Amino acid sequence: MSKLEGKVLVAQGGGPTAVINQSVAGVVLEARRFPQVTRVYGALYGVNGIINENMVDLTEETTSNLEAVANTPSSGLLSTRDKPDEAYCKKIFEVCKAHGIRYFFYCGGNDSADTCRIVNQQASDNNYELRVMHVPKTIDNDLKVTDHCPGYGSAAKFVAQAFAGANLDNRAIPGVYVGVVMGRHAGFLTAAAALGRKYPDDGPHLIYLPERAVTKEKFMADVTTAFEKYGRCVIAVSEGIVDENGEAIASQFTGGEKDSHGNVQLSGTGALGDLLAAWIKESKLTKRVRADTLGYLQRSFLGCVSETDQIEARAVGERAVHYAIHHDLDGSVAIKRAGDYVPSYFLTPLDTVARHSTVMPDAFINEAGNDVTEDFLKYARPLAGPLPEWQRLDAPPVDKVMNK
Amino acid sequence: MSKLEGKVLVAQGGGPTAVINQSVAGVVLEARRFPQVTRVYGALYGVNGIINENMVDLTEETTSNLEAVANTPSSGLLSTRDKPDEAYCKKIFEVCKAHGIRYFFYCGGNDSADTCRIVNQQASDNNYELRVMHVPKTIDNDLKVTDHCPGYGSAAKFVAQAFAGANLDNRAIPGVYVGVVMGRHAGFLTAAAALGRKYPDDGPHLIYLPERAVTKEKFMADVTTAFEKYGRCVIAVSEGIVDENGEAIASQFTGGEKDSHGNVQLSGTGALGDLLAAWIKESKLTKRVRADTLGYLQRSFLGCVSETDQIEARAVGERAVHYAIHHDLDGSVAIKRAGDYVPSYFLTPLDTVARHSTVMPDAFINEAGNDVTEDFLKYARPLAGPLPEWQRLDAPPVDKVMNK
Repeated sequence: MSKLEGKVLVAQGGGPTAVINQSVAGVVLEARRFPQVTRVYGALYGVNGIINENMVDLTEETTSNLEAVANTPSSGLLSTRDKPDEAYCKKIFEVCKAHGIRYFFYCGGNDSADTCRIVNQQASDNNYELRVMHVPKTIDNDLKVTDHCPGYGSAAKFVAQAFAGANLDNRAIPGVYVGVVMGRHAGFLTAAAALGRKYPDDGPHLIYLPERAVTKEKFMADVTTAFEKYGRCVIAVSEGIVDENGEAIASQFTGGEKDSHGNVQLSGTGALGDLLAAWIKESKLTKRVRADTLGYLQRSFLGCVSETDQIEARAVGERAVHYAIHHDLDGSVAIKRAGDYVPSYFLTPLDTVARHSTVMPDAFINEAGNDVTEDFLKYARPLAGPLPEWQRLDAPPVDKVMNK
Repeated sequence: MSKLEGKVLVAQGGGPTAVINQSVAGVVLEARRFPQVTRVYGALYGVNGIINENMVDLTEETTSNLEAVANTPSSGLLSTRDKPDEAYCKKIFEVCKAHGIRYFFYCGGNDSADTCRIVNQQASDNNYELRVMHVPKTIDNDLKVTDHCPGYGSAAKFVAQAFAGANLDNRAIPGVYVGVVMGRHAGFLTAAAALGRKYPDDGPHLIYLPERAVTKEKFMADVTTAFEKYGRCVIAVSEGIVDENGEAIASQFTGGEKDSHGNVQLSGTGALGDLLAAWIKESKLTKRVRADTLGYLQRSFLGCVSETDQIEARAVGERAVHYAIHHDLDGSVAIKRAGDYVPSYFLTPLDTVARHSTVMPDAFINEAGNDVTEDFLKYARPLAGPLPEWQRLDAPPVDKVMNK
């Protein structure tokens, strides 16, 4: 048990998820139970709010409102795309020290874990006792060590329901439908489109992931084969798909705009979908080609949450408090799975999660590189949870009278 | 009461909705109760399935499966973009006659109502007793006479939840967000984005509808003002917005592709969103500009349905059977509203609904032409029904220590 008396600081970084506020609620509600916690602060706009001392006092937030915010998608404490370097982290540390903060919880992806690592190191170098805990979240599901990340299950559920619906639509009015899904390097979220299949001929009939290079020739051959088989074709494509040279296919069409991390902008534009639609139209396979880019709805749509994801996002927040205060440790909370399906939680050192990310294992991708495997479905199903039911008519055909 | 003994034929036309199968279930389940109904057929792929005698016998469909299909989005009987002319309608009539069909129910928009009108006329000209009933559906909400259309409420709910989420996301990571919504001539669906507001500074901060011309100058002036006021900006734009000359702004960017009705393709491409994003980027207002096109999710997303819409879609199907069999009438079922909020149903002649469509009344659009009015919100709220709750944190600020 940590005897360190002082304040708790919690913040959220990077892209929001549908359940990221569950983690904050977990931290705040659990931290407020400990007598050594004098105050629970929340930084607004992530680390940016720390260095600018833009914070709110969550000790004076009602439990009922915290619970309501927990059920609200997107970052209730607001977020940032700032990726702190050593100097930035030094400022974070100094603000923590000035405010008597002894426990810092940062909810985010691998960049946020790296921030935690640096701040933790600086506190240690300066002989300032500061527990630093990374609370994992990302819809991309690309954190190392953990079996999966809070935030992924809900986004996967959204993508599955979107493709289940798009497939029903495409079946009613046949043609080719391309749905572009978020995921720069990891295909987990795009792969979740496969959870939207039920009948043997349901789409998505093809799934393209950043883990496998896509050429126009291969893509068009696949689409043609699928279209000839089904009389229609639904395709799930990751925004991050690359060509044989490892270049993002989308990057040719966004004027090379880069985000604040120096990455080419992939989301928030329909360019990739329109490019793939143009390829298909060119082939004269069918006149009806439609491309949707699922966009920001994937991470923020109001009212589409996986219950499992909600529970786990809350748990990693609570567990982070337990590790910091009951056990006096620093680290990142990770999830292990057993059976079908039981999650358990463990602590992993910050440097095992910081910076680097992971991608889909080979066992989750089919040999042709255009679909997922049963292993993936088994992995993802409990995370997204049950989908709403859908059903086809099942009535016998009527004999022809006129055109016998 | 109609004494006409014979078969019932039901079909679905045009774009699917989330509740169009409720209407079919309403027709089938109700029709099967009448002794003069010998069989209930369903045409596959709308009118196309009639002329090709591609039909199924829904007399031999289980009630439980019909109920399951009723809860499934998109057209369970599949659909068509065919827009029948006189010769096409003649074939429809001939197939009806050959199969002993005496009651024809066609679920669709104003084009489908026109098909009903022509088929009804031809049956009458040929002294063949055929009750023809138009069962209304459209997410565009652009049918004449009726207060609103089944299918709209659920699509409006989806759009409201999408913008509520997009607004939370935009608030967490500020910038400009453009969401493009379906609706070629009528702005009802785009306007529904306003239902996603709750806090005074919630987006969408601007709403552009096809009913009001949009110029680049006006658009950029509005966006600049909103961005300066809120430090961010969420914009809802109809895919059908036009310039001062009445030209669809999107039409410049889709290579002029036309659909089978001779209309320029607006949906299934991110071009309009990307164009508007380019305008905003050009202005250097902010670096972070994102555009999403909500696309086919609006009408087919699995698991986002307005309960009111579901009930009404079922009711128009059942009522259509009552008007045809109990009252021996032809026509289109329409909805009247009273109080806040009670729907009732009435029959309107086919020619009052056929061909022509309607747009948003002036009272629903603000003077500046960039938002909706309270009147619209009052109109649309009961149709979309309640949204999931969302909430902001409400904690006092922390005093600065370092940067006082």
